[in-house]
Amino acid sequence: MILGIDIGGTKMAAVVASESGEIVARQEVAANPEEEPEMSLGRLHAAAIKVLKAARVAVKDLREIGISCGGPLDTATGTIFSPPNLPLWKAVPVRAWFQDRYPQAAITLDNDANATALAEWRWGAGRGTRNMIFLTMGTGIGGGLILDGRVYRGTNDLAGEVGHQTIIINGPACGCGKHGCLEALASGPAIARLARERLEYGRGKALLSRAGGKAADITAQHVVDAAKQGDPYSKTILAEAGTYMGIGLANLIQILNPERIVLGTIAVHAGNLVLEPIRDAIREHAWERSASVCSIVAAELGDRAQDLAAISLAIP
Amino acid sequence: MILGIDIGGTKMAAVVASESGEIVARQEVAANPEEEPEMSLGRLHAAAIKVLKAARVAVKDLREIGISCGGPLDTATGTIFSPPNLPLWKAVPVRAWFQDRYPQAAITLDNDANATALAEWRWGAGRGTRNMIFLTMGTGIGGGLILDGRVYRGTNDLAGEVGHQTIIINGPACGCGKHGCLEALASGPAIARLARERLEYGRGKALLSRAGGKAADITAQHVVDAAKQGDPYSKTILAEAGTYMGIGLANLIQILNPERIVLGTIAVHAGNLVLEPIRDAIREHAWERSASVCSIVAAELGDRAQDLAAISLAIP
Repeated sequence: MILGIDIGGTKMAAVVASESGEIVARQEVAANPEEEPEMSLGRLHAAAIKVLKAARVAVKDLREIGISCGGPLDTATGTIFSPPNLPLWKAVPVRAWFQDRYPQAAITLDNDANATALAEWRWGAGRGTRNMIFLTMGTGIGGGLILDGRVYRGTNDLAGEVGHQTIIINGPACGCGKHGCLEALASGPAIARLARERLEYGRGKALLSRAGGKAADITAQHVVDAAKQGDPYSKTILAEAGTYMGIGLANLIQILNPERIVLGTIAVHAGNLVLEPIRDAIREHAWERSASVCSIVAAELGDRAQDLAAISLAIP
Repeated sequence: MILGIDIGGTKMAAVVASESGEIVARQEVAANPEEEPEMSLGRLHAAAIKVLKAARVAVKDLREIGISCGGPLDTATGTIFSPPNLPLWKAVPVRAWFQDRYPQAAITLDNDANATALAEWRWGAGRGTRNMIFLTMGTGIGGGLILDGRVYRGTNDLAGEVGHQTIIINGPACGCGKHGCLEALASGPAIARLARERLEYGRGKALLSRAGGKAADITAQHVVDAAKQGDPYSKTILAEAGTYMGIGLANLIQILNPERIVLGTIAVHAGNLVLEPIRDAIREHAWERSASVCSIVAAELGDRAQDLAAISLAIP
């Protein structure tokens, strides 16, 4: 049995699961960005004790712990550096903190993109592949790279920042400070921005009413929902974002020649409304002999993704 | 002692070297694109016998052979598929051909970009790194990826085609059939094209006279030579190509977080005239915390690169 700890900006959890990915017990812990990290860790530890008890695992028998968290972080020292939405977590030695409490366990800490990539690779849409790229397609676009059957982390744990490749030189501003990044063109906020910017008299009416009549309130979720109900305007927006995403994936295909690319979040919700434009753009922007060996699919783990992400880190 | 076989479109060679990269004997063989592959292989084999003799290596004692060739090729079966400038080499089982003649030897065949990456990593500008990217910057822009201390080849030997990432959507036509590829913006032919296109009355005069007064005859070598002698026009052209190159490398830095990027050919000839614009563009288009751990340097092996490339493939 493995203990998984998921540290997120809106939700935290302690989970016990088997090596085959079967979740036996779990307990959520509300994230509180204004709380001292020490306090949050204490609440997570209490939840861990509880789920271990529920799973009938004695603490002394626990051998493996996986901890998944948003980056930046340092896998070598097991330290977290102010991940998004957790500004107080400045240089918190999370692994050492848990190691003190579980001295007999091997503890692995990694960022949530790598962890989710591993989980999808072991139990989800990436099963059976040797070279797989996982991409979130939500608030941000982050990636985890499985190359030759192992996570590739790069020189200082910053590999896989595929959302911050430049797609349009001097393009729209990105939250990271650069311009024209993939994330500024195909993430959830980028889709909402495209939808707002493209609003014209008479067009986008269905979408606008869905957002209560206020353009500023349009979200990517509104666009996906409207597109699913056939709204042509919202479909166009998803196709535009999908085209940018496809260009970014075509670059990954040229550089890394993967066997599969697994897309989360919006790709899961929107399905072919965004996957088809992505595949079309790949056909145009990647070589046929590289693209033909690479399937583009939506993630499969759904609600279990974050729990299994933490668990998958602990599997040798 | 290792036997290296370099199969190129303009030059072929058989080389004997030690595991530490010391070349003991070498013999060049003129490439003849109109000759049947069987004949060329026969001449290469004769050269191999000669260099082995010169190095006092008995054929029966030869344990390792490395064969480097332009792609596309299949490393698993050791087959070459019509590399550039060798159109008659359609599905030639090169490894099997040599295996018949050296049954006791372990033979590794790989493309020249991967092989040169390995050679620069072992003995050249990439020494001591764990994550290194080598890029040619000549007629084409091809790459070899050393990740976590090993060559990463991808799913069907097409990883590292970094010259065919899209830098400008719908940009200039690339020889590969796509548009706006890095190779169409920063390779030797792209530099020559930029120089021709940017010629204006009174500008580029020094460059034009260097090419005998005919714009169509301007080559990248002319541009580099003129820039080295201080020609401002040619410097601008190199800076423009360098900027595109830097954007492509920034993407690689975001995606792969390498420790070093080693650039061949034009970067070696032009030095800081192209390396500085590259570094400036990286500062603008990559994250500081990824870019700060990655040095951008010119290749070091020079004339020995191709020989050592073949040799490096055979080192376990």
